[in-house]
Amino acid sequence: MNIWGNKFKVSIFGESHGNGIGVVIDGIPGGIELDMEFIEREMQRRAPGKNNLSTPRSEADKVEILSGFFDGKTTGTPLCGIIRNTNTRSKDYNKSLMRPGHADFTGFMRYGKCHDYRGGGHFSGRITAPLVFAGAVAKNVLREKGVYIGSHIKSICDAEDVGLDLVNIDKELFDAVSAKEFPVINDDCGKKMKDIILKARNEQNSVGGVIECAVLGVPVGIGSPFFGSVESKISSMMFSVPAVKGIEFGKGFEFTKMTGKEANDEFYADENGNVKTYTNNNAGINGGISNGMPIVFSVAVKPTPSIAQKQRTIDLESMKNTEIEIHGRHDPCIVHRAAVVVESGAAIAVLDMILEG
Amino acid sequence: MNIWGNKFKVSIFGESHGNGIGVVIDGIPGGIELDMEFIEREMQRRAPGKNNLSTPRSEADKVEILSGFFDGKTTGTPLCGIIRNTNTRSKDYNKSLMRPGHADFTGFMRYGKCHDYRGGGHFSGRITAPLVFAGAVAKNVLREKGVYIGSHIKSICDAEDVGLDLVNIDKELFDAVSAKEFPVINDDCGKKMKDIILKARNEQNSVGGVIECAVLGVPVGIGSPFFGSVESKISSMMFSVPAVKGIEFGKGFEFTKMTGKEANDEFYADENGNVKTYTNNNAGINGGISNGMPIVFSVAVKPTPSIAQKQRTIDLESMKNTEIEIHGRHDPCIVHRAAVVVESGAAIAVLDMILEG
Amino acid sequence: MNIWGNKFKVSIFGESHGNGIGVVIDGIPGGIELDMEFIEREMQRRAPGKNNLSTPRSEADKVEILSGFFDGKTTGTPLCGIIRNTNTRSKDYNKSLMRPGHADFTGFMRYGKCHDYRGGGHFSGRITAPLVFAGAVAKNVLREKGVYIGSHIKSICDAEDVGLDLVNIDKELFDAVSAKEFPVINDDCGKKMKDIILKARNEQNSVGGVIECAVLGVPVGIGSPFFGSVESKISSMMFSVPAVKGIEFGKGFEFTKMTGKEANDEFYADENGNVKTYTNNNAGINGGISNGMPIVFSVAVKPTPSIAQKQRTIDLESMKNTEIEIHGRHDPCIVHRAAVVVESGAAIAVLDMILEG
Amino acid sequence: MNIWGNKFKVSIFGESHGNGIGVVIDGIPGGIELDMEFIEREMQRRAPGKNNLSTPRSEADKVEILSGFFDGKTTGTPLCGIIRNTNTRSKDYNKSLMRPGHADFTGFMRYGKCHDYRGGGHFSGRITAPLVFAGAVAKNVLREKGVYIGSHIKSICDAEDVGLDLVNIDKELFDAVSAKEFPVINDDCGKKMKDIILKARNEQNSVGGVIECAVLGVPVGIGSPFFGSVESKISSMMFSVPAVKGIEFGKGFEFTKMTGKEANDEFYADENGNVKTYTNNNAGINGGISNGMPIVFSVAVKPTPSIAQKQRTIDLESMKNTEIEIHGRHDPCIVHRAAVVVESGAAIAVLDMILEG
Repeated sequence: MNIWGNKFKVSIFGESHGNGIGVVIDGIPGGIELDMEFIEREMQRRAPGKNNLSTPRSEADKVEILSGFFDGKTTGTPLCGIIRNTNTRSKDYNKSLMRPGHADFTGFMRYGKCHDYRGGGHFSGRITAPLVFAGAVAKNVLREKGVYIGSHIKSICDAEDVGLDLVNIDKELFDAVSAKEFPVINDDCGKKMKDIILKARNEQNSVGGVIECAVLGVPVGIGSPFFGSVESKISSMMFSVPAVKGIEFGKGFEFTKMTGKEANDEFYADENGNVKTYTNNNAGINGGISNGMPIVFSVAVKPTPSIAQKQRTIDLESMKNTEIEIHGRHDPCIVHRAAVVVESGAAIAVLDMILEG
Repeated sequence: MNIWGNKFKVSIFGESHGNGIGVVIDGIPGGIELDMEFIEREMQRRAPGKNNLSTPRSEADKVEILSGFFDGKTTGTPLCGIIRNTNTRSKDYNKSLMRPGHADFTGFMRYGKCHDYRGGGHFSGRITAPLVFAGAVAKNVLREKGVYIGSHIKSICDAEDVGLDLVNIDKELFDAVSAKEFPVINDDCGKKMKDIILKARNEQNSVGGVIECAVLGVPVGIGSPFFGSVESKISSMMFSVPAVKGIEFGKGFEFTKMTGKEANDEFYADENGNVKTYTNNNAGINGGISNGMPIVFSVAVKPTPSIAQKQRTIDLESMKNTEIEIHGRHDPCIVHRAAVVVESGAAIAVLDMILEG
Repeated sequence: MNIWGNKFKVSIFGESHGNGIGVVIDGIPGGIELDMEFIEREMQRRAPGKNNLSTPRSEADKVEILSGFFDGKTTGTPLCGIIRNTNTRSKDYNKSLMRPGHADFTGFMRYGKCHDYRGGGHFSGRITAPLVFAGAVAKNVLREKGVYIGSHIKSICDAEDVGLDLVNIDKELFDAVSAKEFPVINDDCGKKMKDIILKARNEQNSVGGVIECAVLGVPVGIGSPFFGSVESKISSMMFSVPAVKGIEFGKGFEFTKMTGKEANDEFYADENGNVKTYTNNNAGINGGISNGMPIVFSVAVKPTPSIAQKQRTIDLESMKNTEIEIHGRHDPCIVHRAAVVVESGAAIAVLDMILEG
Repeated sequence: MNIWGNKFKVSIFGESHGNGIGVVIDGIPGGIELDMEFIEREMQRRAPGKNNLSTPRSEADKVEILSGFFDGKTTGTPLCGIIRNTNTRSKDYNKSLMRPGHADFTGFMRYGKCHDYRGGGHFSGRITAPLVFAGAVAKNVLREKGVYIGSHIKSICDAEDVGLDLVNIDKELFDAVSAKEFPVINDDCGKKMKDIILKARNEQNSVGGVIECAVLGVPVGIGSPFFGSVESKISSMMFSVPAVKGIEFGKGFEFTKMTGKEANDEFYADENGNVKTYTNNNAGINGGISNGMPIVFSVAVKPTPSIAQKQRTIDLESMKNTEIEIHGRHDPCIVHRAAVVVESGAAIAVLDMILEG
């Protein structure tokens, strides 16, 4: 279950404190020139250690490509990219105290005593680094097909950024937002969010938020009933990203307060004979299949579970009720780092559906 | 993409107005006694034509089992169940006018001119009947493992039912709710919801709502990182259900307003040495793996797109902008009929994960 | 594991003595006109009860299409075809005596006591009827792509038919052979084979043989390393056919007596610039990928295990060593009926690879 | 299609002359102590450059484990092993002359101009090195379940080793044979084979042969109808191994000369109440499911296509008919190196079926 996709298959491996992490991508079209600078920039959007909003654990996150790449282009055979773990402090981790909100307990129950518990092991958010690499490769392929993906932080607690207009979204907006250290549309809103994060940090607490992501230029007709809807594919990928606990497409939960008359997106043919909808409440998806309008969705990211405050828990060895204080280097918020992860997941999902034909 | 699952595989087929619809289930454990009365009751919970809240199209929805069933028990080989379509009025459907909010346009773009457009064809909500059959079989198997699934309507527009207590849910509640014609916990709330639906019906309009579903008795340790999380599997199934546009697990989008301290579910060992959590914000799932607490999630169901009011659309043949009035027999709301569909999808997803081991 | 294929997926169900058997085909291109007469003819090539070379159990093997078919054409959604079992005599079967060479013992061990043992249940050769239906549909699709499939009986015991010329095979030959009641190229050879079969029948014994199958017009470039070679896909399908115990492509086992110089198929460009090989020892496959020459393979079919002679076996209930005499209606040889099954499997495998692109 | 397996999934990557090759194994049970010396020995059985029967290209084939391995044991998460390519001489390879019997032509047609043609690229026999690593890990796991796998060279041209007794096979025999530089049972037969190989080498030619492989201790009941038979799974894996062109199980093609009476393996219960068969013509498999007797199969390996003799071919750039002389370092025979590859493939296939349950 560490493999995802039908045509663009990603096979993820690695633990937070092992020798290395990485991904094998099977099914990349051959002859794609990889823009290594772009890929590097994407990796940096996720990388930790850049400011006081994130964990001070600093990792180069340099990807080495072992295969499937020749003369600057993909060959069409599996592309393996690996990342060495360099900055690990395993002594920060205790084997038998189960951190609340983390996968320590469930990981032990599933994998047994030989589970690599250090730093969350295979459950660590660090494993999203190879996902971002695969996503950057997918974006690179999608760009040649005229498909663009971007995102912004929609909210942190009750601080909200301006929302996307579901009908008219400009890809230049994505370039502007993704170049920012803190990816919001309105920097004043961003300032409020950062203050909330720093406050949480000072209180040894953490916060979450909502990321809104859009995919532009998706061809009409991708996604497949009954079980391969665009929503199914994207959500299945999104819930692989640690800390994501909700997703909605277009109007999502707001739909449940609307009438059919308000909710339906009426069709029209524009002057060029392209079929469009006046509104885009359905986020470019009807019956699970893309209709050519932007695909827009939001994901809920819960607060980082690693907090320094004392918490109640159990000691799995003694099976005693006890308390835990989590030290080490942690993120008071991961939402700003997670934006590129969400985009990457969307890129992989959309490319897979396009290649499925 | 009409096949779902790794161990308990369901393969769905059929169109709204063809000869029949059905499902092949591959991977049912052998020797399971099927409770045909229970299965029949589940089918009836979804079946149309029972009251003025639903479409008057009346279908017997009687399942005939062709294989995999011998002497009252499953044999372990594929079980095929078919349902004949009997009450079809194809003349209600126009081939070239695209109904807003429906899959007419995307279906034509994906499948081409030979697409069976009648009644939504393969996209019809009618195709959820075999899903309910498969779900009832899954529930039957789960019951022997001590796993129970139930749901209620959480809201219709702004009328809300009382919510579930995430920590303490009683399976008897499910029996009570599922026996009701209108599945809510508090019937006064239900009365308000029904009024909203009838009002929409009278205005030739429609409404949606939220369904809350819970799975009790799930063993610790099901679900698999990185891509096979409990949330990924359930959401992938839920977004196959027509009209579902959002899903959240536990606190879901509310998580984004909480701090880590509030969000984390602290562990304790109860008097029997079972590990539990004081709260259950994470809906029984940590790191994508079940922790033994109830799995609770909500899905957003959009208003039925079939409304009799005049709407703008295109004529795909002439590619002219025009208007459409949808006649025929339609549901002013499908939320009450969809509850058992959501439960069925959850049953299939959870059983598949349990069998994956 | 009753589902095969990546793009053209067949999902097989049914038992020899249950209500019915059938297949769901997911992934057929839409808009394909189905030649129902051709499909019916293919079904008849496999059907029993036609002469003294086969079992007298007579089955109409009439397929009813339930879905995915509209106005004489495929719709692109799953096509389900079902066949009723009509001529069953379950009293011929004993539950606890394990028939040698059959799956009685392994079936019980795998599926347990609730296994439908009657007539081999899900293991019965009867389950190849839906496979032939799916294969006929696949052939129908392949024909429009210029791909043709045929076969002949290469040998029964030591009676051999003339072999195919691996380089030059004419599709008219297939039409001629498949129209024969006994599918051989040279009818004198066929006469010898039939005598061997009748002799076995009279001696309450059975015989096997070799079927040689060829696929013409395969586009260059289908099949995928590392694990999706043309040979892997075809062999995986062939070993699903009951009684097949060996397969070889092109020179197959003869290769092991040749030198590289003899074995290599040298390339040339013909007058039209098409790349061809002078010889075709590799059966149109290099590195697991088709090179445009005919794909030719042979399968070994073992003697029918159902023989009336007394055999030693165990009684699974008492776990005593004992003897068995198998009565009922059985085939002294299934090779002539299996030819169309082998072709059908090849059609499904080749079409799946073509659709994978 | 570079991924194989349902529960024990191997994902292969790499090219002969790229940075590295390797494999990700997803689904290894956790807590398995890996015997690194044994794994290293298996790698050496395949490694080139050891004597005059093989290519002088010398590769250390040292595997580095990046993930899924902690404190000497598997963790249950994906295990990635990589091997660096060190001894590459890419100048030996010409881009536009298609080597007969190789995948040059089909590779170009499938992957296009950006295909890494050097040394066969992804088609190279070198890619079997990570397969042997994965196979050694699988054997390590199987050993704990009492399952043992071995093989010997059955023939090179017309020189034959003594065959295995299908009923009684001793695992000690495997240890003895696998420790030999040239894996045969009878060394006199081996001497004849080696002479044939050296003669081919001196004549700038090559030869092939048959490898016979056996799996002992397989539990009763693995393999699944209809499409997951033991034969289907093993053959699908075997035809992924470059140069394999035929496979037969048990009596295989000999079955077609036998009668049912001779072919059927009669059952008996031994003194311990274990069900066995007097003969084992069916190679431990009935109806695609294991019956507990040894699984024995033979594969045909064609002569190495790389020969130094002049051969006719085309120049793909000019599309002219021309000639080619292949220089570089090649194997006059790969059968002795392929034995461990065949065992590895069998180990992966059998373990996958056991884990499928």
